[in-house]
Amino acid sequence: MEGWTLVYEGFEPAQERLREALTSTGNGNFCARGAAEWADVDRVHYPATYAHGCYNRETTILGDRPVLNEDLVNLPNWLVLKLRIEHDPPFRLDGVQVLDYRHELQIRDATVRRFVRFCDAAGRITTLASQRFVSMADAHLGAIEWTITAENWSGEVTVITALDARVTNQGVERYRELEGRHLHPVASRCPEPDLISLIARTRQSRIYVAEAARTRVDSAEGTPEVERGLYHMEDYIHQTLTFRLERGVPTRVEKLVAFSTSRDRAINEPWTAVETAARCFGSYAEARRRHVRAWEELWSDCDLHLPGDARVQLLLRLHAAHVLQVCSPHTTDLDAGVPARGLNGEAYRGHVFWDELYVYPFLNFRLPKITRALLMYRYRRLDRARALAAEAGYRGAMYPWQSGSDGREETQVVHLNPISGRWDPDLSHNQRHVNAAIFYNLWHYYQATADQEFLIEHGAEMMLEIARFWASTAHFNPERGRYEIHGLMGPDEFHENYPDSPRPGLRNNAYTNVMAAWIADTAVRLLSLLPEEARERLRGRLELSDDEVERWRDLSRRMFVPFHDDGIISQFEGYERLEELDWDAYRARYGNVQRLDRILRAEGRDPNRYKVTKQADVILLFFLFREDELSAIFERLGYRYRPDTLRKNLAYYDRRTSHGSTLSFVAHAGVLAGLDPQASWERFLVALESDVGDVQGGTTAEGIHLGVMASTLDLVQRNYLGEQVRDGVLTFRPIRLAGLEGLTMPLRFRGGRLEVALAEGKLRVAVREGALNRSVRVAVGDEVRELAPGEHHAFDLG
Amino acid sequence: MEGWTLVYEGFEPAQERLREALTSTGNGNFCARGAAEWADVDRVHYPATYAHGCYNRETTILGDRPVLNEDLVNLPNWLVLKLRIEHDPPFRLDGVQVLDYRHELQIRDATVRRFVRFCDAAGRITTLASQRFVSMADAHLGAIEWTITAENWSGEVTVITALDARVTNQGVERYRELEGRHLHPVASRCPEPDLISLIARTRQSRIYVAEAARTRVDSAEGTPEVERGLYHMEDYIHQTLTFRLERGVPTRVEKLVAFSTSRDRAINEPWTAVETAARCFGSYAEARRRHVRAWEELWSDCDLHLPGDARVQLLLRLHAAHVLQVCSPHTTDLDAGVPARGLNGEAYRGHVFWDELYVYPFLNFRLPKITRALLMYRYRRLDRARALAAEAGYRGAMYPWQSGSDGREETQVVHLNPISGRWDPDLSHNQRHVNAAIFYNLWHYYQATADQEFLIEHGAEMMLEIARFWASTAHFNPERGRYEIHGLMGPDEFHENYPDSPRPGLRNNAYTNVMAAWIADTAVRLLSLLPEEARERLRGRLELSDDEVERWRDLSRRMFVPFHDDGIISQFEGYERLEELDWDAYRARYGNVQRLDRILRAEGRDPNRYKVTKQADVILLFFLFREDELSAIFERLGYRYRPDTLRKNLAYYDRRTSHGSTLSFVAHAGVLAGLDPQASWERFLVALESDVGDVQGGTTAEGIHLGVMASTLDLVQRNYLGEQVRDGVLTFRPIRLAGLEGLTMPLRFRGGRLEVALAEGKLRVAVREGALNRSVRVAVGDEVRELAPGEHHAFDLG
Repeated sequence: MEGWTLVYEGFEPAQERLREALTSTGNGNFCARGAAEWADVDRVHYPATYAHGCYNRETTILGDRPVLNEDLVNLPNWLVLKLRIEHDPPFRLDGVQVLDYRHELQIRDATVRRFVRFCDAAGRITTLASQRFVSMADAHLGAIEWTITAENWSGEVTVITALDARVTNQGVERYRELEGRHLHPVASRCPEPDLISLIARTRQSRIYVAEAARTRVDSAEGTPEVERGLYHMEDYIHQTLTFRLERGVPTRVEKLVAFSTSRDRAINEPWTAVETAARCFGSYAEARRRHVRAWEELWSDCDLHLPGDARVQLLLRLHAAHVLQVCSPHTTDLDAGVPARGLNGEAYRGHVFWDELYVYPFLNFRLPKITRALLMYRYRRLDRARALAAEAGYRGAMYPWQSGSDGREETQVVHLNPISGRWDPDLSHNQRHVNAAIFYNLWHYYQATADQEFLIEHGAEMMLEIARFWASTAHFNPERGRYEIHGLMGPDEFHENYPDSPRPGLRNNAYTNVMAAWIADTAVRLLSLLPEEARERLRGRLELSDDEVERWRDLSRRMFVPFHDDGIISQFEGYERLEELDWDAYRARYGNVQRLDRILRAEGRDPNRYKVTKQADVILLFFLFREDELSAIFERLGYRYRPDTLRKNLAYYDRRTSHGSTLSFVAHAGVLAGLDPQASWERFLVALESDVGDVQGGTTAEGIHLGVMASTLDLVQRNYLGEQVRDGVLTFRPIRLAGLEGLTMPLRFRGGRLEVALAEGKLRVAVREGALNRSVRVAVGDEVRELAPGEHHAFDLG
Repeated sequence: MEGWTLVYEGFEPAQERLREALTSTGNGNFCARGAAEWADVDRVHYPATYAHGCYNRETTILGDRPVLNEDLVNLPNWLVLKLRIEHDPPFRLDGVQVLDYRHELQIRDATVRRFVRFCDAAGRITTLASQRFVSMADAHLGAIEWTITAENWSGEVTVITALDARVTNQGVERYRELEGRHLHPVASRCPEPDLISLIARTRQSRIYVAEAARTRVDSAEGTPEVERGLYHMEDYIHQTLTFRLERGVPTRVEKLVAFSTSRDRAINEPWTAVETAARCFGSYAEARRRHVRAWEELWSDCDLHLPGDARVQLLLRLHAAHVLQVCSPHTTDLDAGVPARGLNGEAYRGHVFWDELYVYPFLNFRLPKITRALLMYRYRRLDRARALAAEAGYRGAMYPWQSGSDGREETQVVHLNPISGRWDPDLSHNQRHVNAAIFYNLWHYYQATADQEFLIEHGAEMMLEIARFWASTAHFNPERGRYEIHGLMGPDEFHENYPDSPRPGLRNNAYTNVMAAWIADTAVRLLSLLPEEARERLRGRLELSDDEVERWRDLSRRMFVPFHDDGIISQFEGYERLEELDWDAYRARYGNVQRLDRILRAEGRDPNRYKVTKQADVILLFFLFREDELSAIFERLGYRYRPDTLRKNLAYYDRRTSHGSTLSFVAHAGVLAGLDPQASWERFLVALESDVGDVQGGTTAEGIHLGVMASTLDLVQRNYLGEQVRDGVLTFRPIRLAGLEGLTMPLRFRGGRLEVALAEGKLRVAVREGALNRSVRVAVGDEVRELAPGEHHAFDLG
């Protein structure tokens, strides 16, 4: 299928981990990567599956090292299927002659297919085709189907099907010294001849995890006689299925697996729940039909169709599929956040950072119910965020930089530098800007949906508490006559403090201060948006005084923002006095300087000393806000915003940025869109290829970068089509880019269901008939149209 | 406070269980009843608290008896506070001379107060005032405050504060032979001097339950010196707090308890979660302030103010408070259903029956977000209901009569007859009418809210699957030219099958058949209400063919309804041929004949043989539908609905009804409202008093009757004010009743926030300014007004 299949031909052991990461499948509830399915063939035996329900802090103790935390709990490996031909040991790819090998992800239905044709030492030629998916219809179902064909022989084979709770976290090389065992054995059993099941418990968080697998065999010539054997221990169980293969007759083995944790709803306890579920899933074909239908529904809400560029099309769909596998309709009934690496890798230990900032813009306009549910992850942790603020001497709510299962701060305090092998101190928890991101997300969810109920019940409370937090970080400097914020850091992780300063944090990080000013202003406006009764209740509950609101208003007008003399926004106060780095020399010496911080530290140098940034947080301001919004913020603050402000700042920081975070390419692509579309498109392509190409050299295999994947979708919508909600009007300002020609995409806006198409100098917007029967206001530039269901309008792009 | 306090004066041991049931407090998450707080004083030591999160099937094995199930899991008892005066044994009420005793529930803030003044053997006079609540602001907080005053002495006292996981289910006499132990000990500890904590695990359902208690002592003269001692085992922990009481100086002991289960969200694991929470709750006074504010908000949404009758006012508020304690804002993030006895009794083992039918009408117009969340309890169990239907040979979804934690059928198959002491077979699982109730609830939730999103995402799917179920229970009888339903029973539990028939169920129960016809018609209409895209997706997912929809349409026109010759709707086909019972003779012999079934069975007679009903399900039709609705259903079916149909049927069945369910009084009160307001009011008063008066002799102490409590509120709204939603118009038809004069109540309708007031022959409806800014259409009789926010209209009642 054109634009729907990611294909790898040929067997390359060194690439298998990367391929598995990219072709993992999931459904918001759990995710599967499956080297183990192939019988340890490629020596990449890493945990196969994880569950949102199991994202939980697992304490790791490293001898005399500081305590670190792990949040990601393995599921027992359910993918294990092994094949024995006659009395040979189980088949391994490295023990046979591989004649053909193909590995692909069918993106449309998130199905992984693998095909191998091989000749063994006895000269028997066999083909093995594998297909597996994690159901988008049944939240607790994973399934694998094998088709085995003996090409030039007949004889007996044995398929070994197992559930294995002996898995450990070992998917990230540099975490291997950390405690990797998180499952405590409980029990396994075989309640029916074709069913095996197993239950384990997480060691620290006391979550029970259970799996049951039902295995069936059939062939074109009927169901062969199968002899079943059993082997089981507390934490491992397998069945052997022995049957005869007839030459040239494909024989199918299907394994349907039910998965559950003690956190699931509508269960009694997970062990019996999975056994009951496994009995109810029907055949592989039935389960698959439901799965395919569920994906069809998702694509009709989510597919960005871009016929002009096959590669871009493929990768946008790959990214959308990954986003939907982590943030799916099944997520809405879970207590799930947005982990940085999705569900399919151990890196960052499943912690929730700020990546939702990049994920929600896509979801808000497609499946806002998912955003709303994910925002509830924050609401449920509001009390904890209040406690964190209080402990740090602030008011309101301070969400942690790395949020663990109970919302506490899980940021590591030391960090292993793989270049030097040293553990360096890590001050990144000072990235309080996650609180600006959450506020921004809440506001933009509301802009896209006008979901007044959510705002009243949950959203406004979080927003006001975050506004209160930011106000409490600021103090008034009477000399300047302005508010300042000291001691924090921005998203650029290369700058944690001043060189040689013993104190963490910086003075007046521009990103932070501008966000705080915008938040203060928006919080005041928010109050007037609430119905009176709701506003008074909320103010009562929060004990929010008029004086406090007045201070916010003042803060939105008198926050300090540092500038260089020449109109450049200083990343933080004093940035201009840092040393310049000889970038060319470093590039010559090290090649890839993305992680310049590690290079410098390994050389004994402090990155804080230099004008170097991992991602320029000043540029992020231009990415998150439109120029009209940003100039309004600056003008309210009494600073001049000039026509060349964007261009000058971009030029200044681009030269000093290592793009150590792939998100940096996204921000630059977005900001460049209006200035230099072609340059923007090039950065966009870098971001698009970053996981598929594993540009950071190994990090993709540790888990995909969900924020980057999602932000490529957002770039198309927000930066290339120029989407912006202005006073309740869905506004577009498409830029001219050859690659966009023919783009069509579905979109939801404030209860309306739209189709947007860009072609031949026109942007056509249609409102679908029957979709909630709301009319919506749409604009291109200043031309505003109110469209009722069934209506459409083609805006001339002039 | 007038109309806000339920007061009991004087100590009556025999009444304490009833008092505790009525004055239990809860917050949707958990509930507390607390005889144990008084040191076993009244020998009523029953489990103190339960949690929604812990409603779970616990298998009970009775030797060689059939397996029964228990769904209610005790929490460890956290109420234990004991007082030792000097070196005496802990104070008990039966060991002292009680001088004064008062026990009250402050309904407004759901606070239980108890006051005792006593003189001990040594002549010391002491007063002990206790106040306790379960917080409506903090879902995981319970708190008790003791104030101890030594009136004529000074000396040392010791307060013992405990958490006790040794509790068992023993609150229902007739269940005592069943397995009552549901908690498995895990561990207890004392992590800080003023904090004790405990964790246990349920024996079958593997749920961890943890509690932590922080205890502080102070007095008007400062914090006394307190010596703390500790005693702990795996499943019990207590601290002793020894301090000096000065004569006449009131000394406060406050105990704040955090509670959590492993099913809670936003926690790591429950034991550390409760310890962290207990540290964060602040003082008793602070926790109480938040609690009181939360209740103020609830009352502003929910208070029915009825100034004309103090007793009715008090009981309506008591009932509203109980409803809100079981179905609270905290319930919305739980997987909670509506258990028949609320959260505060072991009777019916926490199972979910059909009581929500009586609870939702009140909530739909006040806090519809709670209804929506409770309806999700059903949605999450839809797959199980589908499996139940398939197992029984039906299609669609068949919800169980008694729903356990995982949605399976938990109805007992034998029932203990306390009169005979025998275990009789129990066929009540044939009460498939719960599926009619769920459909009805979904439809009425939608009528009240116009919540299109819920309908599309969840509601319609359940409704269509239930419609499909009912259609599959019907077969076409070509002789009659009509559809019939055989083998089921209606809500009247006295009739399970035909006398001497070996087969369970009846033919053509009128209630069932009329509901099935209405459901078939409504399901067809529902399809046209859905936006096209949503409809097609849903039909695709359900594989719902045009033929099937056509059959529903046919069924809505040709369902058979049995009648006697004289226009009486037969409860079921052949009812008129049953024997008449000599009611006077039975009343003379037995007094209360409400549970006539037990009486007859104890005499060796089969209730199925007689024209006797526990609650007349024919009458229920007139209760659930307005006459215009019912006549439309009958006319669509080709049956005549005559002006005297209601009156004749009511007279016929009233004579033959034992009102063995208190819900029967409600139905009769509702149906009588238009015919004979005074007679209706008398039944209403019976229903109002039924729990407070414990009219069934002991059942209230086993847990309040939530359906009856809620339905008294519904009677005021739906039957006395005559509320009905007709074509999107909120219509009232108030009846003339002296007791209603001056009634005011808040109400939400389709996003609007209204105030309704009945006085001096006028019904005044005001729409609050700012409440979502929707205008609503309101009518009295045929006078329809569209009211925008800020507007009001006084309808003349003529």
